[in-house]
Order: sequence, then structure tokens, then C-alpha cells
Amino acid sequence: MASVFRSATGFRALRTLPSARSFATTRQLRASAAADKPFFRNEPAKPHVKTAIPGPKNQQAAAELDEVFDVRSLNMLANYEASVGNYIADLDGNILLDVYAQIASIPVGYNNPALLAAVQSPEMVTALANRPALGNFPSHDWASVLKTGMLKVAPKGLDQVFTALAGSDANETAYKAAFMYHRQFVRGGPNIEFTEEELSSSMLNKAPGCPPLSIMSFKSGFHGRLFGSLSTTRSKPIHKLDIPAFDWPQAPFPSLKYPLEEFAVENAQEEQRCLAEAERLIKEFHNPVAAIVIEPIQSEGGDNHASPAFFQGLREITKRNNVLMIVDEVQTGVGATGKFWAHDHWNLQTPPDMVTFSKKAQTAGYYYGNPLLRPNKPYRQFNTWMGDPARALIFRAIIQEIERLDLVNHTAATGEYLYAGLERLAQQYPAEFQNLRGKGQGTFIAWDSPQRDAVLRKAKTVGVNIGGSGQRAVRLRPMLIFQKHHADILLESLEKIVKS
Amino acid sequence: MASVFRSATGFRALRTLPSARSFATTRQLRASAAADKPFFRNEPAKPHVKTAIPGPKNQQAAAELDEVFDVRSLNMLANYEASVGNYIADLDGNILLDVYAQIASIPVGYNNPALLAAVQSPEMVTALANRPALGNFPSHDWASVLKTGMLKVAPKGLDQVFTALAGSDANETAYKAAFMYHRQFVRGGPNIEFTEEELSSSMLNKAPGCPPLSIMSFKSGFHGRLFGSLSTTRSKPIHKLDIPAFDWPQAPFPSLKYPLEEFAVENAQEEQRCLAEAERLIKEFHNPVAAIVIEPIQSEGGDNHASPAFFQGLREITKRNNVLMIVDEVQTGVGATGKFWAHDHWNLQTPPDMVTFSKKAQTAGYYYGNPLLRPNKPYRQFNTWMGDPARALIFRAIIQEIERLDLVNHTAATGEYLYAGLERLAQQYPAEFQNLRGKGQGTFIAWDSPQRDAVLRKAKTVGVNIGGSGQRAVRLRPMLIFQKHHADILLESLEKIVKS
Repeated sequence: MASVFRSATGFRALRTLPSARSFATTRQLRASAAADKPFFRNEPAKPHVKTAIPGPKNQQAAAELDEVFDVRSLNMLANYEASVGNYIADLDGNILLDVYAQIASIPVGYNNPALLAAVQSPEMVTALANRPALGNFPSHDWASVLKTGMLKVAPKGLDQVFTALAGSDANETAYKAAFMYHRQFVRGGPNIEFTEEELSSSMLNKAPGCPPLSIMSFKSGFHGRLFGSLSTTRSKPIHKLDIPAFDWPQAPFPSLKYPLEEFAVENAQEEQRCLAEAERLIKEFHNPVAAIVIEPIQSEGGDNHASPAFFQGLREITKRNNVLMIVDEVQTGVGATGKFWAHDHWNLQTPPDMVTFSKKAQTAGYYYGNPLLRPNKPYRQFNTWMGDPARALIFRAIIQEIERLDLVNHTAATGEYLYAGLERLAQQYPAEFQNLRGKGQGTFIAWDSPQRDAVLRKAKTVGVNIGGSGQRAVRLRPMLIFQKHHADILLESLEKIVKS
Repeated sequence: MASVFRSATGFRALRTLPSARSFATTRQLRASAAADKPFFRNEPAKPHVKTAIPGPKNQQAAAELDEVFDVRSLNMLANYEASVGNYIADLDGNILLDVYAQIASIPVGYNNPALLAAVQSPEMVTALANRPALGNFPSHDWASVLKTGMLKVAPKGLDQVFTALAGSDANETAYKAAFMYHRQFVRGGPNIEFTEEELSSSMLNKAPGCPPLSIMSFKSGFHGRLFGSLSTTRSKPIHKLDIPAFDWPQAPFPSLKYPLEEFAVENAQEEQRCLAEAERLIKEFHNPVAAIVIEPIQSEGGDNHASPAFFQGLREITKRNNVLMIVDEVQTGVGATGKFWAHDHWNLQTPPDMVTFSKKAQTAGYYYGNPLLRPNKPYRQFNTWMGDPARALIFRAIIQEIERLDLVNHTAATGEYLYAGLERLAQQYPAEFQNLRGKGQGTFIAWDSPQRDAVLRKAKTVGVNIGGSGQRAVRLRPMLIFQKHHADILLESLEKIVKS
């Protein structure tokens, strides 16, 4: 069944179901990783920039696309057939080392052979051609798909899942679960019936049926862009302008000073200040707080970190005030921080109430453990598709590939190597690499740059695709198959950019 | 490449990429349809009920699933490998004629050979294994996928699309477009910059940055269950209880009396009353109305119809008051009403401003035409995935199959035949078939039943899977490949049920 063909850009891309022989053994692959040999046999050795980016073909194709689809946020039109591993190819034959990875959502590389096999499996064909309404007519093997897939990596203490389609609806369905849980508690338990007034007022969008409860989020947090999730998003005005929002509270997120070792006392005080204000808001905000939502590392908002002590403090506050804690792992989850879930770094005594996921999972949902988070009646948390079995199968294949190649530990090690290299650059070019952060967080690394947007643009000209976050952060979001030799290319490229 | 295997339930299911020979020619198929011969060679001739439903295997599998996934809304665990055409198979070997079709979302039949081929195409493999962030890095052929797919069937006058993942986010992104459009108009055009006060207040979820604007929906309407869409959903308390909602207005939807011919005068008056109240709300509601959203046939809310004159009146009111008109075709779109879009029945002089779609499209989004509906800056309408190219490819294959088999006209004809049969039943059993509706609307047919839930349960025992809507409607949502001989089986089954 295996066949390869020579792609337009000159290197060999795997196009059809690979045979067993085209897979290296696990032992070979782990040995390769240790020796820093490429996971992907057909991955290019280095970037290859042939034209200005966007090149002429790219510009023409963008103009054609613009007729029917808004292209103002376009970076480049990609040639995915010719993209391999850590390298993304564009329409003009340029090949870039991709450390942005579709806004942090590609886990195991372009055209990963294991994924190519999974998406051509008989199960996948059935799932794609016969999309079920999962709440009503799941396929007979849905339990098995969940148990051998996304539940195998469920955060400690959480053993159930509600599946969704993307980060925004994962968060919003978690918020809905929190509101129903809160009202059930206030009402006196799951067996108390709704009142006539609740039933009738709900149809008018009014209390008590639709109560003015709130979700508390944190300054600079990002949780999605639909109406509920956007009301908790506090990243940038461009995300929020002109869109009605709920009157929900915003707590301060610690603003840490770097290097952390130098500012240990100030930073601890800053975290205490934020915790105190968070608890004050929970106690006093006029719209009662049903849950807080927080990212382990604020990503879109500028790669803002806080210490495990801060998150432990938050967990205590939420327990003490009977408020749920939702950890939004949409960007941090699935291995990039050197743990499968970033909140594994915190050593919480009790797990979060819900953990939301998407991006590298290639699907979405929220994990939970408390059975009372299942609403007291069916159809309260429901929609037509409730996720996508095809994407759940892909997540399962991703999990298998992560396990096979030990990619979480691999990423922790590569991250250490990369961070050390960036520290050297920051010593040499302190003005260009400010507030370097993400030590011990795998490859989830960022720094502030005085000319951030220019750096990102220049990066493409030297063959690297990098993203930004917040006002001036350069954020690295390589895939889990990013290796030391890729880190070397990235470090050299960064030095080229700041020297130019 | 073609191979068939005998499935567990005894009939032959197509499992791998079919060869050209396994497709009948278009002429053969259209001739088959006219002669009422099955589109699917391997489709069962009739339902086959072997056990109680749910049967023993089903019950055991449901218990296993319940450990990790809420199953209280479960109808049955399906065996999709063994499902063919209009027939869904379950885990116990029961085979039901499916006129519910995954809550109206399966267009061209289970294991449709054309879809099986499409989901195994090289393009599909690439799209699944390399999911792009469509706003930043679309694949080089994205324009072509759109133009040869979903834009080929774009509603008249609308030639652009914003892609989404499901009905809820299709509606919510349309609402966001409406709010940005409205504010831009009030502000004085796309070139007016945001004020400092708008920028800063938006980060606090407060006006003027996050203005208290509204979307007006209609009583009994259903538009989704995320926070913005749920604020426009007015179907049942179970959808809304305990969830905070925006203070948005609800206009009355006409409550027509049947048969329509008998109540022409009253119904026209009722529609006038609703139009007058809708316009009054637009003029007077305290949170200015940026857009109205309406379904051509209220589906989840009970299959409520209104006349083309009513919708023409609404279009005039929205034009007169500078309010956008969003038509929610999530359930009505893609052929089931005997037109590709249900609003094609209205003969509007100016098209709706936006039309949202999902379900039978197997993906989602909103169509628009006015270039001012593209927000004035990039990244205002944006998210990581912005849809799913794999699902866009499936929609394209569905469109091709609909065209190849002329399924919209076919559905109009089958609908007439089915409706006539139901009229006969309603004459014979007037108490059991009340308010029969959907004449001339393809197979989008419903009636009220005094014991609706019992009818739906009994239907399974005689081999038919049917859904309900609203408080007491039986709603038929067969696929577009539903044929006269299927209608005969359905009619016989319904008679059996009401006789029992």
C-alpha cells in the first residue's frame, strides 16, 4: 500500500497509507530522538526560502481567495501535501521551520505517518461518512474510542468527558455545567424541581430562570470568542469591541518580574495581592460567581506565567467559597509544557473541577470528575453533534504517537536545551530578548521584543514561522516532535534576525 | 479497489473505496428514482426488528458508556458499518427506516458510496492530517474548495462565506458580524477609529466598547445553545434554565390554524399582528436591535410555519428600520423543503443579509453578500480553526451527489407523495394526525399527536426511527434519498401505530 511521490517542492512526501515497513520501530525512534536524529526520514534538513514571502503565486492565490473569504489575517497559503514534520511549505516552494504550528495546534508534525494511517482507517471512513448525533445515536464503539483515547490521558481525578468541537464551545459548555451546578446547590440538590417562575422567566431571558450569575476570569486571559467565552476573554480590545458582553468580574493576574530568581520576594507579594483581590471579588461581586476560569499560562494574552503557589492558592480560595475551578488547557494542554497537562506542574491537593482542551487534541471538550456536574436532567447539556468522532479518533492516534515516541518527556528535554540557548542569546542581546520566560515548561517559551512585529516578519525571510502573543511577546509553540537540531536552527535564525 | 463484506446484520455494506463500476450512471440513477427503484443497491427492502429496542447488547453498551459519558439522552447505539442508505442498524441487529436522520443532519444516506469515496480521497487525507488555522494558513486550494463547494449553492445574492463548525457558532459569528456592522453604521463608517473610551471599556465588558445591543428572535425559535445563540433560543425551558442570558427581545411568531385553506383570513391577521409587534419591538426595545434571526420553519420549536407574505413583510420591516435579517437555515437548508434553501420559497425582492447553515451541510457557516459585513479590521472575526476543510470537502461531495441525483427536485416530488398519504391518514384518524403541515415543503412535514412520545417509542418497535419537536409534534426529517417506497413503509407503519 505504501507509496511516495516527489512533491512540487523537491522532497519526498508520504501520500498514502504507509506500510508497516515505513514506520521505524519505537526503539529505533527513541534512540533517534536521544541521538537527535530526525523522527521523520523525509523531513528537510533545513529551511529553504526561494522567494519573498508572500511570493508571487501566494499573492495571486490570496487575491482569488479574497473574492469569497476574508484574507486580511492571512500569513501564507500553505502546501500541506509538501509539508513534513516540523516544516511547512508554501505555494511558492518556500519551506519554513514552523514553531507556530497552526496557532499551537499541530502536535506530531505535518503528514505524520501514524496520523496518515489513522485517517485512512476503516473506523475513520465510517465516522466521516456517517456523522452521528452523539447524544442520541453514538456508534457502538464510542465508549471504547473515549476510553482508549481521550480518557486515557484525562487529568488526575477527572474520569468523565463532555465532548465539543473547539476551545470556545468547550469553555462555554463547561460554564453551563458550572451554572447548573451552582443553581442546583443553591436550590438544595438535584431532586428539587424548577419553580413555575423559573420555567416561565427562563423563556424571557430573565431571572430567576436565567439568573445573573457570573464566571470570573483574569486580566489578559483568553478563553474564546463566542459570546460567553468572549465575556471571559480579557486579552485585547480587537477581540471584544462592539460585541455585547455579560457583566462578569475580572481578577488581576500576577505581573511577574524576570528573571524570577532576582524578584522572588516582589513576585510572591504580587501573587498574594492577586489572590486577595480574586477572593474579594468572589465574595463581593454583585453577580454571584459560579466558577473561575484560568489558563495555566496566559497564552494569547502575552505568555504570562504564575507560580504553582498562586494556583494552589486559587484552588484553596475556590474550595473555601464553593466556587468551581475551570482550568483552560486549550493551548497549554497535550504535552507542550513538558507535562501532558500544564496544571500537572502545580501538584494540587484536589484536582480542578473541570479542565477544558482543544488545539493539539484536534478536537475539544471538558473533563470532569464530580458526578454532580452532570446536570440533573437529560437534554440540559446537549446539542446536535456534541463533538466529532472522526476528530476523537485523530486525538486517539495523537495520544498513541505521543506515547510511542515518549514525546512529553522529549519535549521537556528539548525545552531545556532550547531555553538554555535562548538564555545565552538574552545575555548577548539583552535589549532584544527581554523577560525570557517558560523555564521548565517544555518548549512553551516566550520573551518580549521591542520590535516584535518586525521580528516575526523577518523570521519568515530567514526560514522560520513564528507567532506572537500579547502586545510584544514572541511566543514559541513548536510541535512535540521539535528536536535539538531544530532548536539549533531556530537559535541561529533568531541571532541572524537580531543582528540584521 | 472495491470490496464488500457481509456485515453482522446480514446485508452487504460497502466498506472501502468503491470502483467506478460500483456507481450507477447518473442516467440510470435518475431513471431508478423516477421508477422508484432504490438509489442504493445494497439497501434493505424493509425494516427488521429482532429485539426490544434498546436490545440487550445495546443496554450493556450503554451502561459501559455511561461510566464516562452522559447517556440519558441516548436513543440507541448504532452500528454505522451496517447502516445503509435510509436504514440505520443498531447493536442488536435491528434495522430501522430512519426518518430522523441524526436530528435532520444526514443528507445522502448512510455509507453513501460517493461520500465513502470522498472521505478516502488524497485531499481528504491531507486535510485531516494537517488541520490548518484557516484565517492564517489556509491550504493553497481553499478558494477552490469553497468555490466548487459551498459557494456553488450560496443563496441568491450572497457570494461570500465565513466558515464555522456547527449551527451555534455559525449563528453567533453572524450575530457578531451584525453587531460590528451596526456600530460601524452608527459610528459613521468603516474608517472611523475606535475611541479611547471604547477601547478601555471593552476590556471591562462595559459600554460603549461592549454596547448593550440586541438580536431579536421569535417565540419558539431555536438557534443553538451557546450563550449568544441560547439568548435567541426560545423553544423550551430545559434549554435555558440556570444559564445567564442577554436582555434581548422576543417577537411573536405566527400561530397558524390548519388546514390553511380554511383559516386563510385568520392566519393573515395573525401574521399581520406578529409583523406589527416585531416592528414595534425593533423601534422601541431598550437595547437597540442590530439584527433579527429567524428560521424559515421553526423546527426544534414544533415545526411552526409562516407564509411567504410574512417573511416578505419582515424583510421590508428590517430594510425600513436598518436592521439586518439573518435567516437560520441550519435545519431547513440543503434541500429538505424541496428547494435548496427554504427561503427560496419566499421570492424576496432583496436577499437576507446573512444565511446560516449546518446539519446536512456537515459543516457550518454564514453566507453574506454586503462587503460591509466584513469587519473593518482583520482579526475582529477570527478564531483558531474557523471551520474545518475536511468537512468542507464532505459538503462539496454532498452537493455533487445532490446535483448528480437531482435530489432537491426528487425530494419535492417525494414530499408531495408523502404528504398526500398523510392527508389520507389524517382524514381517517383525525385525532391522531392534527394540524398536518409542510405541504409543498418537500419532506419537511409534521403533525401534532395527542400521545407524541408514545408514538415515537412505538415507531421503533415497528421499525421506524422518528423524532419529535416542540411539545407534541411528530417531525419527519428523512434524508434526501428518501423515496416513494420508503414513504409507503412509513405510512403503513404509522397506521399500524395509531391502530395499536
